[in-house]
Amino acid sequence: MKLLRFGPAGAEKPGILDAEGRVRDLSGKVGELAGEGVSLEALEAIRAIDVESLPVVENPGRIGSCVARVPNFFCIGLNYTKHAEETGAEPPKEPIIFCKATSALSGPYDNVIIPRDSVKGDWEVELGVVIGKTALYVSEEDALSHVAGYCTINDVSEREFQIERGGQWMKGKSAPTFGPTGPWLVTADEVADPQKLRVTLDLNGETVQDSNTDDMIFTVAEIISYMSRFMELQPGDIIATGTPSGVGMGMKPQRFLKPGDVMEIEVEGLGRQRQEAVAAN
Amino acid sequence: MKLLRFGPAGAEKPGILDAEGRVRDLSGKVGELAGEGVSLEALEAIRAIDVESLPVVENPGRIGSCVARVPNFFCIGLNYTKHAEETGAEPPKEPIIFCKATSALSGPYDNVIIPRDSVKGDWEVELGVVIGKTALYVSEEDALSHVAGYCTINDVSEREFQIERGGQWMKGKSAPTFGPTGPWLVTADEVADPQKLRVTLDLNGETVQDSNTDDMIFTVAEIISYMSRFMELQPGDIIATGTPSGVGMGMKPQRFLKPGDVMEIEVEGLGRQRQEAVAAN
Repeated sequence: MKLLRFGPAGAEKPGILDAEGRVRDLSGKVGELAGEGVSLEALEAIRAIDVESLPVVENPGRIGSCVARVPNFFCIGLNYTKHAEETGAEPPKEPIIFCKATSALSGPYDNVIIPRDSVKGDWEVELGVVIGKTALYVSEEDALSHVAGYCTINDVSEREFQIERGGQWMKGKSAPTFGPTGPWLVTADEVADPQKLRVTLDLNGETVQDSNTDDMIFTVAEIISYMSRFMELQPGDIIATGTPSGVGMGMKPQRFLKPGDVMEIEVEGLGRQRQEAVAAN
Repeated sequence: MKLLRFGPAGAEKPGILDAEGRVRDLSGKVGELAGEGVSLEALEAIRAIDVESLPVVENPGRIGSCVARVPNFFCIGLNYTKHAEETGAEPPKEPIIFCKATSALSGPYDNVIIPRDSVKGDWEVELGVVIGKTALYVSEEDALSHVAGYCTINDVSEREFQIERGGQWMKGKSAPTFGPTGPWLVTADEVADPQKLRVTLDLNGETVQDSNTDDMIFTVAEIISYMSRFMELQPGDIIATGTPSGVGMGMKPQRFLKPGDVMEIEVEGLGRQRQEAVAAN
């Protein structure tokens, strides 16, 4: 299934794509696609609905993030070898875990707002994982059975905020609109292998990131198993699994976001995003 | 007002202390003390209720965290000079921001579960701030008007997970029960000055942390204003504002949590916590 949320920011409704790619309105059937609303049980209940019986939404308008009110917006750092190299860092020996503020979550076509005082805005296409089942001390073998689905994420970053202000990265990852997520939550059954997905990012029409999740240092299964040794993952949690090389920080000369820049982002099979960068008020 | 949540984990009801210190049941009047449920508007609505008209809860039983389902569980690092010294770090030039996983949230008297493979479990008494109004680009002068209230927090930490595994601290801050919060959310009107509160932590009856929020490097107002330059704070967000000296990592020799250890924690006027450390299953 491809689940989505459509409507004005803060007033989105849940929807589902039908066989013809049209949006059908799920709001009469389910609550918010958030937390327990995207648990494996909740997804099974959606699966039991006859999609053709749902109202077609002729003009869905704005598309929101494919999940809402995430309990945590986790990120994995430096999870592609060439990206670690371009940042000047050693490839990590174990996954690096940090967070975006959950208020960074935004829709896949919403403008990306460059914060006040920002000088080093940057882009990061990533495979997003949405948790569907509480995970604590799970094995790698069992890890993927805790996944609700996958989505495209732009882990928008501000490098000066992230790196030059005390060592903890959250400050540079958390501004409003720094988390475009979607357009769809593609349920796990439709993703044959999360380690065989092309990931690309075009900046103003030029492809600057082009890699594949088979280049990840730590697989999705390894990440979930590893994280579950340190914290309990919850239904609705997002994990952005790291970005490949081709970010602005790694270019020579470095190149950072300016108003008017357009990012087009895609993870194979999970849908394409497009954001324009604008200055904060 | 002193607001709290009572009942079994996951099924808590909202309550309020009356003039005699008894718990009154708010569940017929308000929803969950979470997110918008602790916004300044929601608190005003609670204030309009005649407390004496509410049912007395004779046996409240377990007390949960004073707020639930926090959008973010933010923490400030190294915010007392002597604590920075005892860890071997320079006092920070600007606030250090990181996060606990929100699933770390727990009740003030719940056991603290030492995770599997933990070797350096530690304690941190902290003044907790609960946000009551969306905050983005707010001035220091206006910052405290965004506070719903204050609470006692134990920012339980695992130093080996935090410091020796890649540089981002979240891994050592996020295990289940690593966030005892409460017993009460004390509304901001009852805290004359958040920078004049004694903070103490007793380990097995011996006082190991004893300081005052007047020793903070960055005040609550400075922290909120500063954070709001990098992210939008939301109603229900918690900020743990840093711990004073006296943590186990700073002792000579170092001393870490073992099963059976008892932590008693208090922030002046905000209530006392007590946790026993137990081993994970």
